[in-house]
Amino acid sequence: MKDLRLNAALEQMKNEGLTQMVVSDPISVYYLTGEMVHPGERLLALYINVNGNHKLFISELFPIHNDLGVEIVYFTDNENPVEYIANVAEKNAPMGIDKNWPARFLISLMDLNGGSKFQICNVIDNLRTIKDEEEKDAMRLASKLNDEAMGKLIDSIKGDETEIQLANRLAKIYEEQGTQGFSFDPIIVFGANAADPHGEPGNNVAKVGDTVIIDIGCLKDNYCSDMTRTVFLKEPSTKGKEVYEIVAEANRRAEAIIKPGVKFSEIDAAARDFITEKGYGKYFTHRTGHSIGLDVHDLGDVSGINNNPVQPGMIFSIEPGIYLPGELGVRIEDLVLVTEDGCEILNSYSKDIITVG
Amino acid sequence: MKDLRLNAALEQMKNEGLTQMVVSDPISVYYLTGEMVHPGERLLALYINVNGNHKLFISELFPIHNDLGVEIVYFTDNENPVEYIANVAEKNAPMGIDKNWPARFLISLMDLNGGSKFQICNVIDNLRTIKDEEEKDAMRLASKLNDEAMGKLIDSIKGDETEIQLANRLAKIYEEQGTQGFSFDPIIVFGANAADPHGEPGNNVAKVGDTVIIDIGCLKDNYCSDMTRTVFLKEPSTKGKEVYEIVAEANRRAEAIIKPGVKFSEIDAAARDFITEKGYGKYFTHRTGHSIGLDVHDLGDVSGINNNPVQPGMIFSIEPGIYLPGELGVRIEDLVLVTEDGCEILNSYSKDIITVG
Repeated sequence: MKDLRLNAALEQMKNEGLTQMVVSDPISVYYLTGEMVHPGERLLALYINVNGNHKLFISELFPIHNDLGVEIVYFTDNENPVEYIANVAEKNAPMGIDKNWPARFLISLMDLNGGSKFQICNVIDNLRTIKDEEEKDAMRLASKLNDEAMGKLIDSIKGDETEIQLANRLAKIYEEQGTQGFSFDPIIVFGANAADPHGEPGNNVAKVGDTVIIDIGCLKDNYCSDMTRTVFLKEPSTKGKEVYEIVAEANRRAEAIIKPGVKFSEIDAAARDFITEKGYGKYFTHRTGHSIGLDVHDLGDVSGINNNPVQPGMIFSIEPGIYLPGELGVRIEDLVLVTEDGCEILNSYSKDIITVG
Repeated sequence: MKDLRLNAALEQMKNEGLTQMVVSDPISVYYLTGEMVHPGERLLALYINVNGNHKLFISELFPIHNDLGVEIVYFTDNENPVEYIANVAEKNAPMGIDKNWPARFLISLMDLNGGSKFQICNVIDNLRTIKDEEEKDAMRLASKLNDEAMGKLIDSIKGDETEIQLANRLAKIYEEQGTQGFSFDPIIVFGANAADPHGEPGNNVAKVGDTVIIDIGCLKDNYCSDMTRTVFLKEPSTKGKEVYEIVAEANRRAEAIIKPGVKFSEIDAAARDFITEKGYGKYFTHRTGHSIGLDVHDLGDVSGINNNPVQPGMIFSIEPGIYLPGELGVRIEDLVLVTEDGCEILNSYSKDIITVG
């Protein structure tokens, strides 16, 4: 167990009136134990208790070969592992529950009286948002590789390939770089498809003047990168150019105000207010960013309703966008690391207007 | 809404004493509405009630352009959509919950008294296991394409490439076939890595005599294929050959007894008992198969504890394996469709011993 992290978690649990919790997110289990398990639909749970007696519940299909410093309880496909959790739980104390634990396990634990009440506990997610020095270096490296991959991909675009073909080329680039592949399915979309903030790569081929959104990330040493650039095929339209400059300025304005103590909502407003002022507010349909680290979406959004202040060591995306339905989409995204007196932008690839093909 | 499916679901809910449920699995929502939404971490919920008053709750980031025949309630990132569910729920009636609904939504619904009690309800999952004629054809097509991809991939293996390189080649093959890509991350693993039933492709290169496990599937028209073949680099070892023949025979024995009324556990035993008889029982560490359809793992395993009888229209995998740690692994997997008097094997690629390179 990573004692520094575990002890910090137990301290924060006490502050929330909790003595025990079930950690079920495989990434949080990795964060606390150093062991990454992909349990699929099977249960994985690290039970932690302020009095010790921590236990890791895991299917025998995923045997652990390292000494994790925690007792491991294996179960087979013929057993109900939730019974084992209920057996160690303090039945008269509230139980903290990881935010995405599937209902079938949670309801089973409730039926077995595995706690006096059940409440969501985000302490591990919150700890994960503050990166230590080793994590910062891992995030810098993942974003450096992502910048390089972005350059290689953009340089390769001739304009005669489909969105899916570009996505497959990117897979090859990440492989050659020695990364663990995608941190999320790449969003490489052209023209009208780029106007859908959740468009997926298909068999479209870009037309002259189309915006090409390239929203990509790799996984390196288990840490995620995530960046977006938007380029134009052959030449930008007048409208395309106008929209691009607005999004780029919104991106710069948000990044410019980041320092400890500034609220996430203020950073969101810095980007959003500028876009609104320019008349495109209703076309910026999503939050400005999200936290990132071991998971591509860590807890904590750069959004209008998150009034928490940012803290040194936090890493999140700044990704304003404008989407004109059926016409074009532009998004520009960097990852930023909050420092003692400002922020370090982890992506350095150009944000000038670029044409390809 | 797909009325036939919806009405069947409501009937089965009544049998379970339920008047209402929250359907949250995006695939189940697609199954009932015909609309596929990938909501990421945001809530997606189809509330259904035996008295009508069905409602679909969805983020405004995913606008629906088709008439689904159900009222749609949109919400923004600044709202708590669970409140809207609680507002339509019958507070004095039990609420059925989809099996994987994240704890943060479920606990919020409980705190808002969105039902008199909360129980897991699998009626949609159960309906999904019985395929109609259109679905059978979609599954046949996906498996036919997978057979072809398997052939192309095996023919291409020269023995000097890494596991990841073969996986990337497969992505290209699926793309050329016009599929939607992987139905799951391919498991292409060599030698000792093949001896781990959950090994993942890495930078290994096969050695002469290594078993090469190729466990792959594509998505076509939203339906999944999934098959495994194991081949040998250059020549099989004596042990490799022996193990292969045992697994192939176990696969055939399980498939031979499938017909309506036979229990899943009996099919599991047909494969397992033969492997045990041959002395390798402890090296067959997983269930014999799983249901499949719109999701690569539908509800219902071919395992020793599933005593449900199979029914016409069900499709599942038959995938016995033997894993000798550090040495080799062999798995052979087909998809089968239960017919009125037996089964149709959806994969036709050879199960004879094949050498490559």
